[in-house]
Amino acid sequence: MLLFTWLSAKPENDVVYYPNRILKGLDTGLRTRNPVSWIKEALSATEDDIISMSGVDTAVYFVYLTTGIILTILLVSGIVLLPMLLPVSVTDHSVRLTNTTSNGTFDQLDQLSMGHVGQSSPRLWAYVIGIYLVSIVTYYLLWKAYKHVSDLRATALMSPEIRVEQFTILVRDIPNPPEGETRKEQVDSYFRSIYPDTFFRSMVVTDTKEVNKIWEELEGYRKKLTRAECLYLRSKTVGNPEGVRPTNRIGFLGLCGKKVDTIEYCNEKINELIPKLEAEQKITLREKQLSSALIFFSSRVAAASAGQCLHARMVDTWTVMEAPEPRQLIWSNLSLHFYERQVRKYVVYIIVALTIVFYMIPIGIISAFTTLKNLMKLLPFIKPVVKITVIRTVLEAYLPQIALIIFLSLLPKLLMCLSKAEGIPSESHAVRATSGKYFYFTVLNVFIGVTLGATLFSTIKEVEDHPNSIISLLAASLPANATFFLTYVALKFFVGYGLELSRIIPLIVYHLKKKYLCKTEADLREAWAPGDLGYATRVPADMLIVTIVLCYSVIAPLIIPFGIVYFALGWLVLRNQALKVYVPSYESYGRMWPHIHTRILAALVLYQLTMLGYLGVKEFYYTPILFLLPIASLIFAFICSKKFYRFFQHTALEVAGRELKESPNMERVFRSFVPLSLSTDKVDYDHLGDA
Amino acid sequence: MLLFTWLSAKPENDVVYYPNRILKGLDTGLRTRNPVSWIKEALSATEDDIISMSGVDTAVYFVYLTTGIILTILLVSGIVLLPMLLPVSVTDHSVRLTNTTSNGTFDQLDQLSMGHVGQSSPRLWAYVIGIYLVSIVTYYLLWKAYKHVSDLRATALMSPEIRVEQFTILVRDIPNPPEGETRKEQVDSYFRSIYPDTFFRSMVVTDTKEVNKIWEELEGYRKKLTRAECLYLRSKTVGNPEGVRPTNRIGFLGLCGKKVDTIEYCNEKINELIPKLEAEQKITLREKQLSSALIFFSSRVAAASAGQCLHARMVDTWTVMEAPEPRQLIWSNLSLHFYERQVRKYVVYIIVALTIVFYMIPIGIISAFTTLKNLMKLLPFIKPVVKITVIRTVLEAYLPQIALIIFLSLLPKLLMCLSKAEGIPSESHAVRATSGKYFYFTVLNVFIGVTLGATLFSTIKEVEDHPNSIISLLAASLPANATFFLTYVALKFFVGYGLELSRIIPLIVYHLKKKYLCKTEADLREAWAPGDLGYATRVPADMLIVTIVLCYSVIAPLIIPFGIVYFALGWLVLRNQALKVYVPSYESYGRMWPHIHTRILAALVLYQLTMLGYLGVKEFYYTPILFLLPIASLIFAFICSKKFYRFFQHTALEVAGRELKESPNMERVFRSFVPLSLSTDKVDYDHLGDA
Repeated sequence: MLLFTWLSAKPENDVVYYPNRILKGLDTGLRTRNPVSWIKEALSATEDDIISMSGVDTAVYFVYLTTGIILTILLVSGIVLLPMLLPVSVTDHSVRLTNTTSNGTFDQLDQLSMGHVGQSSPRLWAYVIGIYLVSIVTYYLLWKAYKHVSDLRATALMSPEIRVEQFTILVRDIPNPPEGETRKEQVDSYFRSIYPDTFFRSMVVTDTKEVNKIWEELEGYRKKLTRAECLYLRSKTVGNPEGVRPTNRIGFLGLCGKKVDTIEYCNEKINELIPKLEAEQKITLREKQLSSALIFFSSRVAAASAGQCLHARMVDTWTVMEAPEPRQLIWSNLSLHFYERQVRKYVVYIIVALTIVFYMIPIGIISAFTTLKNLMKLLPFIKPVVKITVIRTVLEAYLPQIALIIFLSLLPKLLMCLSKAEGIPSESHAVRATSGKYFYFTVLNVFIGVTLGATLFSTIKEVEDHPNSIISLLAASLPANATFFLTYVALKFFVGYGLELSRIIPLIVYHLKKKYLCKTEADLREAWAPGDLGYATRVPADMLIVTIVLCYSVIAPLIIPFGIVYFALGWLVLRNQALKVYVPSYESYGRMWPHIHTRILAALVLYQLTMLGYLGVKEFYYTPILFLLPIASLIFAFICSKKFYRFFQHTALEVAGRELKESPNMERVFRSFVPLSLSTDKVDYDHLGDA
Repeated sequence: MLLFTWLSAKPENDVVYYPNRILKGLDTGLRTRNPVSWIKEALSATEDDIISMSGVDTAVYFVYLTTGIILTILLVSGIVLLPMLLPVSVTDHSVRLTNTTSNGTFDQLDQLSMGHVGQSSPRLWAYVIGIYLVSIVTYYLLWKAYKHVSDLRATALMSPEIRVEQFTILVRDIPNPPEGETRKEQVDSYFRSIYPDTFFRSMVVTDTKEVNKIWEELEGYRKKLTRAECLYLRSKTVGNPEGVRPTNRIGFLGLCGKKVDTIEYCNEKINELIPKLEAEQKITLREKQLSSALIFFSSRVAAASAGQCLHARMVDTWTVMEAPEPRQLIWSNLSLHFYERQVRKYVVYIIVALTIVFYMIPIGIISAFTTLKNLMKLLPFIKPVVKITVIRTVLEAYLPQIALIIFLSLLPKLLMCLSKAEGIPSESHAVRATSGKYFYFTVLNVFIGVTLGATLFSTIKEVEDHPNSIISLLAASLPANATFFLTYVALKFFVGYGLELSRIIPLIVYHLKKKYLCKTEADLREAWAPGDLGYATRVPADMLIVTIVLCYSVIAPLIIPFGIVYFALGWLVLRNQALKVYVPSYESYGRMWPHIHTRILAALVLYQLTMLGYLGVKEFYYTPILFLLPIASLIFAFICSKKFYRFFQHTALEVAGRELKESPNMERVFRSFVPLSLSTDKVDYDHLGDA
């Protein structure tokens, strides 16, 4: 925080600490060394500010964090501090704790935990009531949150502003056109006959692989040219008024080959490529039409209604959906066929399932090897370093966690690739899919994997014989791993949010780039581009904390304050980042929420099941009374998805039917969907209209 | 058949044998004693004839019967007569059949069955291939049939004729109107804002309980009056030109109380009731508006699109669906609320599940008691009758089956009531729901219940320990019950189709009614009203035969010819009945098919599982190779429902977008949905328009 206060006050760092405000053309705020000012700003910002600065998706993310905060605070009051639970635990002297959950340093707190209550003691009733309370209030919170997010989405969708994607639908799986008709004519006549009044025009998706390649080459040369011109200009110093014309080699990687004058060479190449691009554009538009199209409607209701209706008799032809924003379209996925998408989906599911199962093995090995004792045996040369007490303490506490975190950071990219390979047509959907996969991965591997850890392998036979015993096994192994997860959560918010707020790594990278690489204004802008919040990993990471805190709340209550700090700090830091740093790369109008909702419920069910197991381990006679809870959670999930979910799939007509500020400029709507590589001034519009 | 030929030739029986033609205003055909003529007619009728005489639903039913015929023929060729299977069974002399499946009378045929092949003989490979063949060809047939039915449905839906239900949608779960607005205004403004061009008008559903009661009373008196007038007219014979004015008592059931002149009394009552009805109509329209409405659109596409779009943000408000035909609306269910419908649905499911489980007990008892020996013990007075050989033989063969059939005939009414209690808004949907329940009932109780029968109770402990053993148990008990099901199928087509074709019971009832009860023309017409085909019981009954024939095809191949006769005879007889007798009471455009499709697949899966078990009993080493088949069936079911099902839920827009013969008379469309009790000439239309 100190670093942040110090660094952010320097004007030359503005582009690192206020990029969102700069890009929006706002001033960068009062620069003061007062370390509280950013906190005040974050606290005073309203939800509307967030939406206007960072979009509905970010606002939804804060709804999630708020729910997390309330949930953890509630855990304290519901389970630990609740007047009835405290005396219940503290005054029970029937058990002497032998394997304390916190390495003997937090004896006082351990007295609050359920471990302190005797086997099959009637005092456990208090915990049963506590678990019920937590569950019921979670339902209430989730219900309120879902309703609130639904309102946010509706407000955004019925805004009188014109948003191009609200006038557009995406049609896939168009059958082959009949003899003597082009794809374009086929699509036009099909939709014109169904929507004679509201159909505006169509844009057939084309295979842009070739034209993209040429366009990228062209852009590359253009960039090179500006850079070379910049360098040339700068070399014209007083001492050398002619300047040095920059040169480069044209061979492999610029290392060998003939030496040429860069400016001349680039100009030559550009002049060569422009007609080639234009020719390729024409060919693409005429001959490379694929089996999908974007359809533009002149009214919002018509598009919203067309995006959710069944058009053809066979569901695998003319499949429609609401178009995503132009910037988040994944063009290469648009033309995959129905069955290809289905098959890809299931193949990806299988791959992900295999990944989840087999990642467990390296994680298990890591947690076995990264104890300090083992490391010293394996790598004797680190012994002298380890003997220093400070380093030793830090390593002992954090080594396995650091290993785990590094290991996990490799995964999201893989999962994102897999999600895109499913054939998902929009970036935001791919992010949601990745986030879901990552959640199951972390919960199954990190939480359950680490917890069961070595015990699992020794007792795998037992599990095979009695599959139900996995829950009681999990419950029995939980206490032993409390310390691990405590440090895990602490590390996450100390290091994680510290790095997040101070932005040391982007700062260093920016300054290095500025010094050594960036030649032009565009280069600089690229160097400080802040990116977006990265929901694909952020949401499941938070979800893992929710799961850990929930499941350990009764066993090792010490984890609850850590959880509160995590969510409160996260809320504060990210509010600052959302307002000032990150620039959203898409807007999905809160479609992330149903996923978050389901996963919080999944965490709750896991909590309920572990509690069931833990009370079973305590030989509490009335444990079966807790069986009602997972069932109640499933019913709740079912009702929520029935009531709310469809509106997150489609736009409700009453929302789309609100009046607009002005009638839309349909030509502009159409143009905004033309891919960059096809939209040059040279290609005449009429021709473009044909595809 | 002889009875039919003889009776149907008499002109006075026309109304029993040709009611559908009479009601359609067609001549009743050539009356000839040639017993072949009706067969010729049935055979020569095309699918279009069926559709024009009896609707798409009937045509779909024939698609089903045809599939059944092909399926059974295929079984013969695929399993029994297939060149490779015959020699395989016949030439295997390793087994001496001790418990033959056909009571020792069909030894020759038994040699064709799988029981004749030795334990774990490699010859069983031939059967594995046979089972695969049957499965694959079933998939092929079902795929073709689904496609064909989908075509039938599309053709019907895009007909240029005006069908009122295609311009109407049903809206339920309308929230309470805002202060100072009537329900009608609320609905109108809501839909007018979304569909400014195509919205025609709305009709709020009202609580017609009161008005219905008065209207029925009134109609009763009107009927009584016509009858009395008729009697009075007839009593004016030559001998008594004044006639006898009919009288009746107005007390309980017309048995006590004051004697009055019927004509006068009825006229008095009618005059009394008419103003009461009118007043009640006004009150109903004004004050008893409920939370659902019918919305009329001026275009078919608009209605089809509105019927499948999400209108409100919360899915539990403003829920829409395509309106069913006016004649099949179940008015009392229209205003049930979302959650009420959900809860009712699950409550009904639980009740049905309990019914299925506990009906097993009486059926078990019946099959134990209805052996002749037991009956003689219990009812000694039937001994003399039983001693006659003919009766004895018949009773021995058919007694348990008759008991079963009678027992089962009580069930459909109960299931229909339960289905309507679910809150289903249309008659055809209720029929489908009933048919589904009845299918699971018959398969679970009749087929599995009877097969396992007594064995189950003795081995229930074993099943508890190894739940998987139920399949092998089923397979092991199958052979013993082959005779029972053989006679069951035979009885079904001999007695069932005999009664069906000859219509002896409706004929007798009609003649009795005509002689003793019917006084007026309307009475007569009511007496010969033929009703519809009754899919609720007919479809699951046929499905049971499919299941039985499939599952026994390998074990007791004698059942296959019986199956063929059943379906072929059924096809022939019902084609006659559909063309000449039954009048469809609704048209759902083939929406029964997805249900039939799923259930045929369920029967196929059961077949595959029993074969798995039976080959297991035969200790065939490669049995696990059959595990692929149930999985393949599930994948096939999934693909079919993905590809075809949505069109059976909603009207595809390309279908609804076809041009109409003429623009619809919207006033007529609106009038056709007004319930009878509210549609008198006296209520002025404008007022009616308000609700």
